[in-house]
Amino acid sequence: MKINIIVTLKDNVEDAEGQSVLKALHLLGYDEVSNVRTGKVYYIEMKGNDLSKGYEFCDKLLANPVINKCKVERDD
Amino acid sequence: MKINIIVTLKDNVEDAEGQSVLKALHLLGYDEVSNVRTGKVYYIEMKGNDLSKGYEFCDKLLANPVINKCKVERDD
Repeated sequence: MKINIIVTLKDNVEDAEGQSVLKALHLLGYDEVSNVRTGKVYYIEMKGNDLSKGYEFCDKLLANPVINKCKVERDD
Repeated sequence: MKINIIVTLKDNVEDAEGQSVLKALHLLGYDEVSNVRTGKVYYIEMKGNDLSKGYEFCDKLLANPVINKCKVERDD
């Protein structure tokens, strides 16, 4: 199966990269943009059908539980 | 509106970070994983309804057209 794991910062954690992109978009004249947050996606191909493995990968490798949250989706 | 911009490497470009995650998952014993590729997501809040702005942001700021591809989605 293919799964997508999306790792983002928790809502209460400041996203410096997002703020930097927001500033750059304003400098380019896109004043209609009001907020930018960022995240990381991992596209994983694996044998088996156990979606919960995705959360294991988060816990053990991909995310820092203090500042990150994880979303795991099946990619069909 | 809210849009999500997903920036990934083109299929023919080697994804060193993905390879590194794959190796780490194998070291953790997850031999069922056969491939990992990575990408970056930008969650953008903006005024207006023009989804094509997302592609402008890619062209002008977020993506390197030599190695990246962009996907823009409305986030409802």
